[in-house]
Amino acid sequence: MTAAGSPTTPAPRRVRVALLGCGNVGAALVGLIRARHDALVIQSGAELELAGIAVADLSRPRPPHVPVDLLTADAAALVADPSVDVVVELMGGLEPAGQLVRAALDAGKPVVTANKALLASSQGTELRALAHRRGVDLLYEAAVAGAIPLVRALRESLTGERIDRVLGIVNGTTNFILTRMAEGGAGYAEALAEAQSLGLAEADPTADVAGHDAAAKAAILAGVAFGYDVAASDVACEGITGIDAALVAFADRLGHAVKLLAVVERVSAAGGPASPADAGELSVRVHPALVPRAHPLASVNGAFNAVFVVGEAAGELMLYGQGAGGLPTASAVLGDVIDATRNLLAGTTAPTPERTPARLHPASDLTSACCVSVEVDDRPGVLASVAAVFGDHGVSIKAMEQHDGPDRGQARLVFLTHHARMGDVSGTLAELARMDAVEQVGPAVPVMEGGA
Amino acid sequence: MTAAGSPTTPAPRRVRVALLGCGNVGAALVGLIRARHDALVIQSGAELELAGIAVADLSRPRPPHVPVDLLTADAAALVADPSVDVVVELMGGLEPAGQLVRAALDAGKPVVTANKALLASSQGTELRALAHRRGVDLLYEAAVAGAIPLVRALRESLTGERIDRVLGIVNGTTNFILTRMAEGGAGYAEALAEAQSLGLAEADPTADVAGHDAAAKAAILAGVAFGYDVAASDVACEGITGIDAALVAFADRLGHAVKLLAVVERVSAAGGPASPADAGELSVRVHPALVPRAHPLASVNGAFNAVFVVGEAAGELMLYGQGAGGLPTASAVLGDVIDATRNLLAGTTAPTPERTPARLHPASDLTSACCVSVEVDDRPGVLASVAAVFGDHGVSIKAMEQHDGPDRGQARLVFLTHHARMGDVSGTLAELARMDAVEQVGPAVPVMEGGA
Repeated sequence: MTAAGSPTTPAPRRVRVALLGCGNVGAALVGLIRARHDALVIQSGAELELAGIAVADLSRPRPPHVPVDLLTADAAALVADPSVDVVVELMGGLEPAGQLVRAALDAGKPVVTANKALLASSQGTELRALAHRRGVDLLYEAAVAGAIPLVRALRESLTGERIDRVLGIVNGTTNFILTRMAEGGAGYAEALAEAQSLGLAEADPTADVAGHDAAAKAAILAGVAFGYDVAASDVACEGITGIDAALVAFADRLGHAVKLLAVVERVSAAGGPASPADAGELSVRVHPALVPRAHPLASVNGAFNAVFVVGEAAGELMLYGQGAGGLPTASAVLGDVIDATRNLLAGTTAPTPERTPARLHPASDLTSACCVSVEVDDRPGVLASVAAVFGDHGVSIKAMEQHDGPDRGQARLVFLTHHARMGDVSGTLAELARMDAVEQVGPAVPVMEGGA
Repeated sequence: MTAAGSPTTPAPRRVRVALLGCGNVGAALVGLIRARHDALVIQSGAELELAGIAVADLSRPRPPHVPVDLLTADAAALVADPSVDVVVELMGGLEPAGQLVRAALDAGKPVVTANKALLASSQGTELRALAHRRGVDLLYEAAVAGAIPLVRALRESLTGERIDRVLGIVNGTTNFILTRMAEGGAGYAEALAEAQSLGLAEADPTADVAGHDAAAKAAILAGVAFGYDVAASDVACEGITGIDAALVAFADRLGHAVKLLAVVERVSAAGGPASPADAGELSVRVHPALVPRAHPLASVNGAFNAVFVVGEAAGELMLYGQGAGGLPTASAVLGDVIDATRNLLAGTTAPTPERTPARLHPASDLTSACCVSVEVDDRPGVLASVAAVFGDHGVSIKAMEQHDGPDRGQARLVFLTHHARMGDVSGTLAELARMDAVEQVGPAVPVMEGGA
């Protein structure tokens, strides 16, 4: 790694990087670019130089390694600065991030972003098309699973591969909560409070626990792995708020772990797996699931992320790593910055195969065995009437356990159904929720089949 | 995915691919190139056309999808054919593969190979330098862990990352054998016979069970992940032939799985972890190890491969998948062919950072707790004399178990040592092997520290 400084090598070109946003990830990126200066020259072929750092609040204190003289409140002017070669967007949210990314691409500047909300919005499709039209890179390795080199693996290494199925644990907050519930027998509220106290969950945890964050990532995965344009709003989404300790313990006794999965898979229009000759429909969904303990996803614990990919020729693959955190995410962003820089110098771009709108398969048409937890008044006849509702919807019960409920006079019933149409299970749960004797109904948690 | 055939798109350029070798992987590659014709045009930007298939034996029967008219026995002429754009080498072995790859690169033709032996030989360094000099790609995703997109992840996604440690289960045969020993309590010979009957082990299994295959992969990983030139012959290598069921069962009771690991890590010259400021020395080795059950590598079972990577910023990553098999390996080769084709059309190459010779750290200087199995004559005083040998070498025993030996009058002693210098443990084992009362001495199996 000594060639760069040797007298025979010409001085590398300078590539000026504009950074939009300087939170955890941005500050970590500034640190990496400075600390790895020499290695980056070798890897990118250019001298990476920070042109400026746009922040919302100039007066906010910054870590000491962030050069204060580079801070600016005028992000648009920074993006427009003709000396800027590459734009890194780490502000998050739809606006002003969207218009800044658009302005950069319009000016022919490659953009690196970790903004999953933007990419999975309707703007995402337009921005990708714009980048393609302008012949510049729009790279987003950090948007799906933090430091895990997933997007590039799908886009490049597996480019010759027909992907059949992607199953991801792509939200560290919910995986931490579910892990605590499984390991420590903690209740949902207790595990969430612990995640919050560790900084792993926001004060308002909705985006994580309701599955919205995972849904945006599922939409991006549908694009990268399957070549389909899917927006987060198209993703059938169920979070983990209704998961209770009784269901987690029941799953454990069945030899399963409860995980929040982002699932993207080809299914035939009739609902089964799509045949190789059939592009089929795409099922894109987020929901908690019972994962068999022998499956590699079952042992992904704590705040870690993992994405399991099934390809026609490659078979089963899994990529595992840190899905969040300033430094791991900055590492993924830096990989993209190097990529964009190399492509810029070579006058090329990362491959961007054309996308087609997906024919989405309705989640209600899938079939699965399911686990369901229901909180009821603990009095005679209630179990029978609850069971009758399952039967009325054509959902057959395979096993049931009764536990004490959270309050006196209440009971918690945990059901395992036989294979059933998910729409029928939802219908069952909706009717149960309307019953007087029913206090609360948890989500339908499908049982994933097969090990690894 | 319809653009390629639309009237507004110009006809894609034809890129002619020469295939050297048509065993399992080669035949699967031919099938993939034909079956995915339309998708490949979109992904590679070119029409991939097989120019010829060089085989050693023209009379050998081939699968029906292999076009007989493309077979040739003259590999050199095929490589030299001016109409050939890309060469795929799947012959294996050092020669004639080495001279054919050299001829292709010399002629400015990109080469895709899965030949780990060639890459990890002294020729590997020359071939990489030649490719660099000629400005053409030499790609080898399939050489390390089959379908797992590892090489590209290390070379591109993690290019901004300082890698501290790579731990790989990179040989499916030995992992299958160790898994059977752990799950079924099978002995080594029995598990090996099962692997052979399933086609997972060769009739002569030496290359796998002695760790030579893993050592070649460790050498390649040292280059890709750390930028150091290491040859397979530089790798300290211990296989699994001396592992017995008693040691596997003992490890299990300690909460560990026995895995054959390829390890590449930075260590300080003094032996500890290298500090960030210190390039340190590189320890490159293959040996069985006790992996804590909570570690993601511990649940990689059967013939699967996985590579665990620790980066300074990215943290812990693991990539998991099929390490062998015709179709999975062909999938990785095809990804490289697409890459080479795109680079060819764009007039660029995959990044090839310069490599430096590694300062290798002697394996004997590392320290670890170790597990050791010793077969002895079952008579009074033997245990005491065996224990004394440990003490004489400064190796302190933490735990010991005695089991019946394979034959009457023999006993098997399984020891767990405290932290010790590996050179002292080797010295102990060498002296034990010379004792009259000792029938057989297994390898020193280090205990890996920490979970995940």
